[in-house]
Amino acid sequence: MQYPSKILENAVEEISQLPGIGKRTAMRLALHMLKKSKTQTESLAESLVKLVNEIKYCKKCHAISENDICDVCSNAMRDQQLICVVEDIRDVMAIENTGQYKGVYHVLGGKISPMEGIGPQQLKIDSLVERAHLANEIILALSSTMEGDTTMFYLYKILKDRDILISAIARGIGVGDEIEFTDEVTLLRSIQNRIPYSASVMH
Amino acid sequence: MQYPSKILENAVEEISQLPGIGKRTAMRLALHMLKKSKTQTESLAESLVKLVNEIKYCKKCHAISENDICDVCSNAMRDQQLICVVEDIRDVMAIENTGQYKGVYHVLGGKISPMEGIGPQQLKIDSLVERAHLANEIILALSSTMEGDTTMFYLYKILKDRDILISAIARGIGVGDEIEFTDEVTLLRSIQNRIPYSASVMH
Repeated sequence: MQYPSKILENAVEEISQLPGIGKRTAMRLALHMLKKSKTQTESLAESLVKLVNEIKYCKKCHAISENDICDVCSNAMRDQQLICVVEDIRDVMAIENTGQYKGVYHVLGGKISPMEGIGPQQLKIDSLVERAHLANEIILALSSTMEGDTTMFYLYKILKDRDILISAIARGIGVGDEIEFTDEVTLLRSIQNRIPYSASVMH
Repeated sequence: MQYPSKILENAVEEISQLPGIGKRTAMRLALHMLKKSKTQTESLAESLVKLVNEIKYCKKCHAISENDICDVCSNAMRDQQLICVVEDIRDVMAIENTGQYKGVYHVLGGKISPMEGIGPQQLKIDSLVERAHLANEIILALSSTMEGDTTMFYLYKILKDRDILISAIARGIGVGDEIEFTDEVTLLRSIQNRIPYSASVMH
């Protein structure tokens, strides 16, 4: 495409580097910024620079945090011996939203993915192994994808010989979902991993 | 949503101000930036600040331009008496891509839209009226939406008493489209505005 201005071309080029944003959307966003007040875009730019330069991670669980140790890790009411292993901060936020989980987290920062060149050494696995001796139970709570399953299996192999319970979150039919529209793999797993009815309605 | 960090929350808030980007996508983009190198995001931020502060518009046609007068307006080979009125720079780029249009442009910067509070005074209409006395023909090339039609009718009313041909781009069935899948309004217009067959294959 022939751009009428180098400045516009640069901006479109930079915006379209973001995942899921093509050249056409980038152009739309750039023109939107030109229509709005300058300060609005300047404030966006400033918040991005601040984000990448000033964000802090909890030294214990690696979650994004206000302080050196996050609110969950520093909360004496949380069970520090129950560690839930997740991929990123969005999973922490989602589980915290349930309002019921009383343990702590460990944020890996990704999943093992040979396709994207992410191996175990790129993830926060060493520090999990270090923390493990303080734990009674480690819950593996990664997405049920090939990368998630691979990562969970890798963690299980490393941790299994220790005196800790290694558990995995339940896979099954979502609450509110219809059986007839559930894929076979999920349906099979939900039958294989059935639990006593009394336990299923207890919560 | 409860964010673990004010810096993250701010960034997500700012990103989600952009059109078509919700909180969830904004969060995904913010985490993507945290995974990539700082310089990449800093360079994005810089290009946005540069965009809103340094972009130039052609003083004649209001298109985004490198110089005070754009390449089209300053090109002696272009017919300065043929003015194509468009909404924004994307339309200029699309028409330039055909490689066949030999006139110049006039970029309105939007369409009349009472819903969005955009009236004629927010658009570059005064300068079009000024330029009009130099023109032989003014082509109205706005989108065929309610706002586009309203704007074209408004321009027609202002310009019709002058000694200029006011034309509108042809509405009809797109090249390559099937008649049976064309909506009734387009089909009717394409029949009403039919042209001699010899003229239709001339190009």
